Amino acid sequence: MDASRLRNISNALTESGLDALALNPGFSLLFASGLHFHLMERPVVALFAVDGRIAIVLPELEVAKLANLSYEIKAFPYGENPKTWTEVFRNAIKYLDLDGKKIGMEPLSMRIFEYRYLQAAAPLTTFPDATETIASLRMIKGEKEIAALRKAAEIAQNALKATMPMIKIGVSEKTIAAELVSQLLKHGSESPLPFQPIVSGGENSANPHATPTERKLQKGDLLVIDWGARYGDYISDITRTFAIGEVDAEYRKIHEIVQAANAAGRAAAKPGLPAKVVDIAARKVIEEAGYGEYFTHRTGHGIGMEAHEAPYMRDDNERILEVGMTFTVEPGIYLPNRNGVRVEDDMAITENGAESLSTLPREIIVLG
Amino acid sequence: MDASRLRNISNALTESGLDALALNPGFSLLFASGLHFHLMERPVVALFAVDGRIAIVLPELEVAKLANLSYEIKAFPYGENPKTWTEVFRNAIKYLDLDGKKIGMEPLSMRIFEYRYLQAAAPLTTFPDATETIASLRMIKGEKEIAALRKAAEIAQNALKATMPMIKIGVSEKTIAAELVSQLLKHGSESPLPFQPIVSGGENSANPHATPTERKLQKGDLLVIDWGARYGDYISDITRTFAIGEVDAEYRKIHEIVQAANAAGRAAAKPGLPAKVVDIAARKVIEEAGYGEYFTHRTGHGIGMEAHEAPYMRDDNERILEVGMTFTVEPGIYLPNRNGVRVEDDMAITENGAESLSTLPREIIVLG
Repeated sequence: MDASRLRNISNALTESGLDALALNPGFSLLFASGLHFHLMERPVVALFAVDGRIAIVLPELEVAKLANLSYEIKAFPYGENPKTWTEVFRNAIKYLDLDGKKIGMEPLSMRIFEYRYLQAAAPLTTFPDATETIASLRMIKGEKEIAALRKAAEIAQNALKATMPMIKIGVSEKTIAAELVSQLLKHGSESPLPFQPIVSGGENSANPHATPTERKLQKGDLLVIDWGARYGDYISDITRTFAIGEVDAEYRKIHEIVQAANAAGRAAAKPGLPAKVVDIAARKVIEEAGYGEYFTHRTGHGIGMEAHEAPYMRDDNERILEVGMTFTVEPGIYLPNRNGVRVEDDMAITENGAESLSTLPREIIVLG
Repeated sequence: MDASRLRNISNALTESGLDALALNPGFSLLFASGLHFHLMERPVVALFAVDGRIAIVLPELEVAKLANLSYEIKAFPYGENPKTWTEVFRNAIKYLDLDGKKIGMEPLSMRIFEYRYLQAAAPLTTFPDATETIASLRMIKGEKEIAALRKAAEIAQNALKATMPMIKIGVSEKTIAAELVSQLLKHGSESPLPFQPIVSGGENSANPHATPTERKLQKGDLLVIDWGARYGDYISDITRTFAIGEVDAEYRKIHEIVQAANAAGRAAAKPGLPAKVVDIAARKVIEEAGYGEYFTHRTGHGIGMEAHEAPYMRDDNERILEVGMTFTVEPGIYLPNRNGVRVEDDMAITENGAESLSTLPREIIVLG
């Protein structure tokens, strides 16, 4: 973790008028502390005070994780008896003098579980939504973060290439997905994967959020594969669509349209423009081709430690794109009860436009 | 999903004096509905009314998941604009006539995110903690659930056997963990794995919650492997400790003590007795051998869909063990800055005692 990150957090808290930030296990805690904790039936909460001091309430069992950190953190460990935990939270709040102050938190991550301990320990405190404060920090990636995202894309692409030879008529979606997961790990993806790969053939490809089934590939299927890897805590999220043997002429046509929409979305992304331009540019291509009603989701989402984070590529998102923002461009056309297409790349905003971190050919490839 | 499950939920709500249960994505929702949803930046909440009616608020994009269910559920789908979501929640609350009533929820799963939509939609409603209500249902496993847990243990054991040949001096913890994950999937584990395997050698084995590092195995190391598989939505969670070549005599001794503690804990588990007897029996063996202070955690936790659920094997847990309860027995001894040992099995309470679903030999095995 860069030393500057904690300074940036303090500054962002000052700007937001917050006295502290409370984070439970999740990606924001990982971002802010470099610490890997998972959600469990024991509470873990780190408190980042605006003056730079940090406290963490955690099980005694986990204190070893705090060894060898490059910054100071005051541990408030507790034992196995839940009756003692509120008192430990109280001590942490007291140490940072936070009762009656404003402690920002993330509603998308904080559970009622941790929240009630915080409320009990700091009854006079308010807990405003700090989603935007932390998102604005996480959204701008530095050089090392972009390098990790690029490497995660490279691992994913190599894993797909290694999986392609077994993609044939008669092989099931589940079998392909298991091989792809195994190849992702062999090619260096960290665990857990950012998400389970989508491998959807034929009519299943018309469902953008399908999970792999026992359905076997048939001649004439479109095959959508949406997969990603994790490296240095950062992820990739790529989609390509394949043809299994010769496919319907309309399927080839919608692939060409989606590929053009993907290119238009990527070309529209530039620093200084609002995020919505990406969605509008990609959607326009599909609408003008007469398939607008079959593009049923937004054009993309931010990527980083998380597979879905800000900024979102929606037609109403006015957020200005800045150098270092990273996100997907993933238009699709889904013909109900028939087949579907999606082409997805991982982008990083640069000084002059945007670079695609994923570089696999986007043209339809015939397999099987 | 058995048809009886929804009736059991209604009955449990009646007994608890609740008018409904609100579940967000997680294992309780999977248990109650058979539906796989994941936590994301869009809210999904299912409401189970005491009269048996069910409503679900979810993104339009996910409505296809409700096809082919064996029970009735009223969908309240919403579009991409967050400004419309509160109204959709309000409609669901109105449909079930829940404003001003008591809606139970699980603090360990419910986020501030979903909770605030519920509060806005039902301002007169109280949201009591229903953890025990749902846990009491989930804790007693039926025949099919035990069969799935047994199969998950079998898959995990076969995967470990397939991994053992590559466990040698000079191989890193991370390399072993990647191979074990790959073998788990090849042997039929569903994704995602219940947890990332712990592979900790030498001084890392003294940290019960270590994550795999680049550290390479050395002669004289103890090696703790804690891993599990998922099958039919149920999991396994097993630990074995290996010796890499000849190890310190004290390390062999603590392994014998832990193995005896594991056997004592398993033998103590019987229907009609409180859960604490398992912890007390295992802990006594370690304390009497003079290593009590190095057994730093509880003896076990319930297993099911989740890798950590009720009942917990703690020395203060008075919950009476019943036929169909399933849990781990996992005593350990961790010598700080030296090496550690843990031996963990998955148990199911039977008419006469408890059966170990995991059956791998528990003796220390010398590898490398």
